[in-house]
Amino acid sequence: MKLAVMGAGAVGRSVVALAGEHGHDVVAVADSQTAVVDDEGLDAQAVLERKSARGRVGELDPEAALDAEYDALVEATPTTLDDAEPGFSHVARALERDRDVVLANKGPVAERYADVAALEAESAGRVRFEATVAGAIPVLGTIEDYGRSQVTAAKGIFNGTANFVLSRMAAEGLSYEHVLAEAQDLGVAEADPTFDVDGTDAALKCVILANVLADGDATYTLEDADVEGIRSIPPSALDLAAEDGRTVRLVGEATAEGARVGPRLVPEGGPLAVTGTQNVVQLDTESAGALELGGRGAGGDETASAVLADVRRLED
Amino acid sequence: MKLAVMGAGAVGRSVVALAGEHGHDVVAVADSQTAVVDDEGLDAQAVLERKSARGRVGELDPEAALDAEYDALVEATPTTLDDAEPGFSHVARALERDRDVVLANKGPVAERYADVAALEAESAGRVRFEATVAGAIPVLGTIEDYGRSQVTAAKGIFNGTANFVLSRMAAEGLSYEHVLAEAQDLGVAEADPTFDVDGTDAALKCVILANVLADGDATYTLEDADVEGIRSIPPSALDLAAEDGRTVRLVGEATAEGARVGPRLVPEGGPLAVTGTQNVVQLDTESAGALELGGRGAGGDETASAVLADVRRLED
Repeated sequence: MKLAVMGAGAVGRSVVALAGEHGHDVVAVADSQTAVVDDEGLDAQAVLERKSARGRVGELDPEAALDAEYDALVEATPTTLDDAEPGFSHVARALERDRDVVLANKGPVAERYADVAALEAESAGRVRFEATVAGAIPVLGTIEDYGRSQVTAAKGIFNGTANFVLSRMAAEGLSYEHVLAEAQDLGVAEADPTFDVDGTDAALKCVILANVLADGDATYTLEDADVEGIRSIPPSALDLAAEDGRTVRLVGEATAEGARVGPRLVPEGGPLAVTGTQNVVQLDTESAGALELGGRGAGGDETASAVLADVRRLED
Repeated sequence: MKLAVMGAGAVGRSVVALAGEHGHDVVAVADSQTAVVDDEGLDAQAVLERKSARGRVGELDPEAALDAEYDALVEATPTTLDDAEPGFSHVARALERDRDVVLANKGPVAERYADVAALEAESAGRVRFEATVAGAIPVLGTIEDYGRSQVTAAKGIFNGTANFVLSRMAAEGLSYEHVLAEAQDLGVAEADPTFDVDGTDAALKCVILANVLADGDATYTLEDADVEGIRSIPPSALDLAAEDGRTVRLVGEATAEGARVGPRLVPEGGPLAVTGTQNVVQLDTESAGALELGGRGAGGDETASAVLADVRRLED
């Protein structure tokens, strides 16, 4: 397929780098300032080198990428809250042109799911967003295959940074502040870790899952979610949990009735007690018991793999 | 879609029972002696009650189901080795009529993959077989989505009976014979457990995975696999492993180069050290790290869910 990639952060760049070996052509790439377009297919390596050397992908206005002759738009600009812009407008522009959309940006499907669904209903284009929930882990594809009505609940570890901090605190008896500083040194936590440690990132993923599981009967935004982060967990709470064979994890949950995220006691050695930046998602099904899906929940190549899995499904 | 279901064992019956809530019509069902056909859609409940009360699904010859006006044939007769009959002929008949095929029967894709691929290449019908590998766990769909060439290896616990026996032996220090008898009492092991404890069932699944990963460059049968079972493992071997923080599991492995199954040392608490009848499959990918997929690897409803996931993909 011919792809236009909006956003040249880690995910957008990985999509550009990997598209060729999946049999796709990248015909447009935009970063926040510029764009490059070639309807016959860009030289991916040259685009990435230009971005790295000069800080921009091309010379055109970013808007030019939206007008390119692509089959599917890959929306990989940063996740924003409330109006979810500029991602939402990119999605709208593609659907108005009857083109498919693949999202890595959580904003449009977490904050404006009803609007996206309304635009999709009017369009010949389809919207997919596997990459918005738990990176490389095939959560949404599995729900689609088994049937939305057959999956009653999703529960899991959706944020690698928070999980790294909690599992280090538990293993070493260290304070939140100490482990966070360490995570920042390692590049596991960002300079401003708010989105991760306050549960916002995990909550956005659970809101998206709740929107999928509700299947049109209801739509949710971040405001509807019950969210608590990990800042105020003392090491003593982890010690107490350990005495009881348990530990604390930032657990996200979604059903057709909504989403919630917060620190929960989970059994040591159980499926939710993953360590480090690993993510895991448990799906409860009507007829097939619980499915457990684990893997890397973040990272450029990992998230790009989910984007390209969506593109592959659009080809069928 | 309109389904013809060949085989009325646990899986076939579950497909008949669940098809309606997935939006499909069952137009034909055959057991080994009889068939029932209604091109307008059968009354699933009535068919299942007749099978239960009289031991047969209908009054027609089983062949009649193959001539019904179905969109997809569900092949759920028992797995047989070598010529993989009668499943293989059912698949061939459907493909000759340009109909889709969904397999729960491992035989045709483990023992005659090249023949099935050749027939599929000549047909407008497509062949899917998610249910043949690890029951409810979405292994083949995930490989398809991420790209066969992107998955370098699959490794896991593919047989619930063998895993139940090994995990009980390790936990309780009991002998193989003792735990096997217990498993037979619980219905976890069959009266003749050969297929499970000798590794044949796990090997068939790994051969199927190797066929998928080789993607036409090679095809394998059970004869090509290196297979060792669990009969000769003494409790002392499990004790020794435990002293070293490890345990023994019947691990199956597949790559494009082939398949092997045997008892292996795995870390206690690691992803392959699942207990009971749980299955787990680890996929190594080129760009997205390792994916871990776990769930119930057997059972009528669980396997039928995988069959119906395949049918859903055929609809797209």
